[in-house]
Amino acid sequence: MKRYRIGVLGATGTVGQQIVHRLRNHPWFSVTSLAASDRSAGKHYSEAVHWRIPERIPEEAASMIVRPLSANLDCDICLSALDASVAGEAEEEFARAGYPVISNSRNHRMDSDVPLLVPEVNPSHIALVERQRASRGFGSGFMATNPNCSTAGLVVALKPLHDAFGIEAISVVTMQALSGAGFPGVASLDVTDNLIPHIAGEEDKLETEPRKILGELRDGFVSDANIRISAHCNRVPVIDGHTESVSLKLRHRATPQDVSAALREFTGEPQRLGLPSAPAQPIEVRDEADRPQPRLDRDAGDGMSVVVGRVRACPVFDIRFTLLSHNLIRGAAGAAILNAELFAHAGYFAARDSAELVSVTAS
Amino acid sequence: MKRYRIGVLGATGTVGQQIVHRLRNHPWFSVTSLAASDRSAGKHYSEAVHWRIPERIPEEAASMIVRPLSANLDCDICLSALDASVAGEAEEEFARAGYPVISNSRNHRMDSDVPLLVPEVNPSHIALVERQRASRGFGSGFMATNPNCSTAGLVVALKPLHDAFGIEAISVVTMQALSGAGFPGVASLDVTDNLIPHIAGEEDKLETEPRKILGELRDGFVSDANIRISAHCNRVPVIDGHTESVSLKLRHRATPQDVSAALREFTGEPQRLGLPSAPAQPIEVRDEADRPQPRLDRDAGDGMSVVVGRVRACPVFDIRFTLLSHNLIRGAAGAAILNAELFAHAGYFAARDSAELVSVTAS
Amino acid sequence: MKRYRIGVLGATGTVGQQIVHRLRNHPWFSVTSLAASDRSAGKHYSEAVHWRIPERIPEEAASMIVRPLSANLDCDICLSALDASVAGEAEEEFARAGYPVISNSRNHRMDSDVPLLVPEVNPSHIALVERQRASRGFGSGFMATNPNCSTAGLVVALKPLHDAFGIEAISVVTMQALSGAGFPGVASLDVTDNLIPHIAGEEDKLETEPRKILGELRDGFVSDANIRISAHCNRVPVIDGHTESVSLKLRHRATPQDVSAALREFTGEPQRLGLPSAPAQPIEVRDEADRPQPRLDRDAGDGMSVVVGRVRACPVFDIRFTLLSHNLIRGAAGAAILNAELFAHAGYFAARDSAELVSVTAS
Amino acid sequence: MKRYRIGVLGATGTVGQQIVHRLRNHPWFSVTSLAASDRSAGKHYSEAVHWRIPERIPEEAASMIVRPLSANLDCDICLSALDASVAGEAEEEFARAGYPVISNSRNHRMDSDVPLLVPEVNPSHIALVERQRASRGFGSGFMATNPNCSTAGLVVALKPLHDAFGIEAISVVTMQALSGAGFPGVASLDVTDNLIPHIAGEEDKLETEPRKILGELRDGFVSDANIRISAHCNRVPVIDGHTESVSLKLRHRATPQDVSAALREFTGEPQRLGLPSAPAQPIEVRDEADRPQPRLDRDAGDGMSVVVGRVRACPVFDIRFTLLSHNLIRGAAGAAILNAELFAHAGYFAARDSAELVSVTAS
Repeated sequence: MKRYRIGVLGATGTVGQQIVHRLRNHPWFSVTSLAASDRSAGKHYSEAVHWRIPERIPEEAASMIVRPLSANLDCDICLSALDASVAGEAEEEFARAGYPVISNSRNHRMDSDVPLLVPEVNPSHIALVERQRASRGFGSGFMATNPNCSTAGLVVALKPLHDAFGIEAISVVTMQALSGAGFPGVASLDVTDNLIPHIAGEEDKLETEPRKILGELRDGFVSDANIRISAHCNRVPVIDGHTESVSLKLRHRATPQDVSAALREFTGEPQRLGLPSAPAQPIEVRDEADRPQPRLDRDAGDGMSVVVGRVRACPVFDIRFTLLSHNLIRGAAGAAILNAELFAHAGYFAARDSAELVSVTAS
Repeated sequence: MKRYRIGVLGATGTVGQQIVHRLRNHPWFSVTSLAASDRSAGKHYSEAVHWRIPERIPEEAASMIVRPLSANLDCDICLSALDASVAGEAEEEFARAGYPVISNSRNHRMDSDVPLLVPEVNPSHIALVERQRASRGFGSGFMATNPNCSTAGLVVALKPLHDAFGIEAISVVTMQALSGAGFPGVASLDVTDNLIPHIAGEEDKLETEPRKILGELRDGFVSDANIRISAHCNRVPVIDGHTESVSLKLRHRATPQDVSAALREFTGEPQRLGLPSAPAQPIEVRDEADRPQPRLDRDAGDGMSVVVGRVRACPVFDIRFTLLSHNLIRGAAGAAILNAELFAHAGYFAARDSAELVSVTAS
Repeated sequence: MKRYRIGVLGATGTVGQQIVHRLRNHPWFSVTSLAASDRSAGKHYSEAVHWRIPERIPEEAASMIVRPLSANLDCDICLSALDASVAGEAEEEFARAGYPVISNSRNHRMDSDVPLLVPEVNPSHIALVERQRASRGFGSGFMATNPNCSTAGLVVALKPLHDAFGIEAISVVTMQALSGAGFPGVASLDVTDNLIPHIAGEEDKLETEPRKILGELRDGFVSDANIRISAHCNRVPVIDGHTESVSLKLRHRATPQDVSAALREFTGEPQRLGLPSAPAQPIEVRDEADRPQPRLDRDAGDGMSVVVGRVRACPVFDIRFTLLSHNLIRGAAGAAILNAELFAHAGYFAARDSAELVSVTAS
Repeated sequence: MKRYRIGVLGATGTVGQQIVHRLRNHPWFSVTSLAASDRSAGKHYSEAVHWRIPERIPEEAASMIVRPLSANLDCDICLSALDASVAGEAEEEFARAGYPVISNSRNHRMDSDVPLLVPEVNPSHIALVERQRASRGFGSGFMATNPNCSTAGLVVALKPLHDAFGIEAISVVTMQALSGAGFPGVASLDVTDNLIPHIAGEEDKLETEPRKILGELRDGFVSDANIRISAHCNRVPVIDGHTESVSLKLRHRATPQDVSAALREFTGEPQRLGLPSAPAQPIEVRDEADRPQPRLDRDAGDGMSVVVGRVRACPVFDIRFTLLSHNLIRGAAGAAILNAELFAHAGYFAARDSAELVSVTAS
């Protein structure tokens, strides 16, 4: 496998840090560029970032000069953790300039020609990129996205159940971690001895994104899965790890044992391909009455496994369970990296050399 | 109104303390006896109790000698906050000895001849006491109960909606406070930067108790309401105040505005009778996107109001909202006191004098 | 006592809210003006403020229009909770315009002609105002300040000990509450399962302010007390209430019993004068091994009492103890109000009528 | 190096788990026996333990049958994490039966013939074992201890400073983590939005243990270091990692730069010998104003490094700083293992075979 040079857009934020952190010692990727807002540009990364990960900043990143968001970075691929206020335009400009942009931002997720991709769930949606390039006039560049952090873990568990039993409706209540709000994010005064029963925009994402991800690709278009979803989203005083109480209405009868077995046995494309960030077991099923718990289980599979517990019958729907996934890893940084690995494996990336770089400045 | 002498059973626990605290300066009731397990009996209350309420122990209680659980207390009424391991037998013995026992414990809640009572919701169920006395051979004594702390607030909000629109099914996910587990209860190591997606026995209570409370009294029997309920119960790091994400399937169409209006306008028997612990407004409806929050809203109506927010349409069911109620007050101590007030007003209590006291010893 | 009209400068912040909250039903003072930064000016107070106090906004305040920081407010006295970035100039302009300014901000605390006042400790320092007026050319206006929130409680406990035994040196380590940083203040990600061993500027304040407060007034100047102070300041995940581990080196021998007695028996000018916000007991001494604790003890004396516990001999210094005081009340809002009460009682305030108002605009 | 078989006494507790966890893949040691109280004995370890470490129980340990506390375990060395209520007698019986007992318990720490050992600080104290064997009539067995969790980190930092500048007095205020109290330990209701300014027995340990550890070995006896120590111990809502605000009075002048350099350059016997658990850098000095912080820094050096920050002059003493160390690792499990490694290297352990095992039953 050849190595690719990675540029991280929005490198100083909570997700950007996590991408930099997780790419240390990556077998295929090396971080060569860090870009961020004008406030950070020009500084050493170690000065620009409020580094919140216990392990120290990777040495090679610490001394890099943060670049502005101009589409002339020295890299083959951009991983974007940009804030939604700038991601929309910036990502499109980078793609137009020839960069593949693998994004964690929400701006282009629901665009019909942009894959909203979870490699275990809908790897075939990668093909949307062809239509995207054609319709937007892109050359080698393109955009692909990973879902919202509360959707990312859920769809992994939904996939084998939808395939086996058909999901008709979902009622999901989230208890989401603080790191999902970025930094500084939630004020400590708002969430000590407290929780907040609202996260702006989140319920809408959780009610729409799974329908696209679980949708079928036909003739270059994704037709949304016919699943009704109701989401209540809550913020709780937990650092990392989104917990979700999930009830499902199924089209075909399934016992809790059937469901547990389907979850446990599930593997997807990343496991078959042996992608570097793919967890051996995408879904861990716990039998204890009181698991999963965020502090104990969020790091399963190096943060990439989804942990499910309390699988049981539901008196109103058919099946219910508790699901946990690491919002910064499976739900953001790790998701973007896994997507990049899938594209790399599929041959979508050309290694670029500096001479080719088009000079386009993000507004 | 005449004054009644109150004995508190299980006076040293989290709920028992709260009863003692809330009865200071009560217009009808005076605490005259404090009873607890043998470990505490014989000590001054101030020594026996690990008092966790910021206000100091009421002076008259502090110096009382804690009595054992023998049914010869110097009081007219017993309020019980006994642990379920002893409440079953002890409460029945007190009732048999002639004491009205108003209990917070779960043991007799589902007995068909024991009212499971929330004065705003099912005051007519008080009549079960007659059958109880007859069938169990009680004299002036009897047992009445209040529901589980996660049920107590919920049914207040369900009542006007069931009356107006008919509730067919409920999906409820709770985020319950630490104090609901008593003291020492949840270990800090288990719930710092964490939550626990399981509370033993709780989901079963929340799925059955509302059906009895909202049931109809016919010929001395309660016929359960025909409502399917699914509950996921979670413990979160919040001191007091249970938050619930609720979705409802209704028999008759209702807009969020209809629902908000029905909640806001609701008042019940305690408000009409002006019972001392009745909140002016049993249900407060908040319009802000991010309320109710436990730390800010749990003390509404002196802890007796239920606070509802985020009333909105549900893509899967019909209506959904977030509900908060103070688990130790509306869900326990205040509930028992309000029940006692309802019985007092209805003339169910005879003031007893010491000579009458039957000497029966709880095992 | 006549009533005074109060203007609150910086009314939307954490301390400003607390002032508005505590002045509801004040016997001498009525809030008539609320002023804040340009971002808030022109809005209704209820819209401009992110109200974080469980009790609702006082009705009369909720509907007031927030005024800009111009020295033409309709009030007799200004209570200032301005941010230090604007307080310096703004307060001086209000004073020059004829307003007495009772400030919680740090800017003028160490000015030699500005009282740094704790009514129980150094009420005579009020006299600095005369020199201030003369030297700055003020008319009826003047400035007076209360100390930093970690100093405010400490000096109340130091006062009787310094009088009785002479304090030579102090080693104090604080564990300060989140609300001391204002809102949004400390990010939840920084302080969940964590503490921060640094608060910018705080140690310097705690090492200098007590020397001025405990200093002697001679010929219109305060001569600092000759006490060496070492402070370590830490931020801990507690909402309200600063806890301090204090060791004292004394000039005269004192047993822990002597110290406890001196603390317990202490009362000051506010108690003698019966000022409305004066706690009956400025210092509560607890005998339990594990008190004071912030959640249980911060509201002692309606937040105005300082609570001391664990008074014992020190193997290195002479005496040590743990001290707690409510940083937003004794340490900020309540301190400013008590100062205002002291000045009111001493006749320093003239009720102003609107015609007198000088029009000076704060930059 | 030959391999030794390890028995863990008190294997189900918080520290015992950590020992089991840290010995997975140890190059010299293999866990062959797990012993605990009668309540656990006879069960599989996986059933007996409430495992609180995110990584799963090592497979070989999970299936072991927990043994009672009888001195006939199949092992060469015992690592003890027994509760102080049983450790005193049990450890002595194991030693008498021929087992080297490396203990984390406090019972024998201050015995004059028992080393209180921190390998970086006082490796020569290992020699006390000879006198112990002689005076107690032990054969190959002996007892050695590591200090209290709040002492363990502190003495590592004191060592180079005492050597270079002479420490005369110490004022230390701790902010100790929840895990220091074991499980269930501190109730969540006691420490949410709260701290507790008292830990039973802790101040006494912190005021005496460093004097022994820093003492000189002369003629087989340790003469305590002549250092006065004052400790205030507080419990704060942090999971792992004890933070300490430290002020030192020195016999010889030192600038903060001198102190930082001495700390940074320090290495000890474990580093020279390359013991497997020795951190490369026993003391990390941070230059940021707000470090160390428990959540970010407790895992430095795999939990074995002590992290020091904010080194600065002290207006009352001479030098002050903030220190952090992981209470379960440097302060308990890792400390015991490092001690065992030191003894192993020094040739104190004989590999035993089962036939030799003396059958003595702990009461």
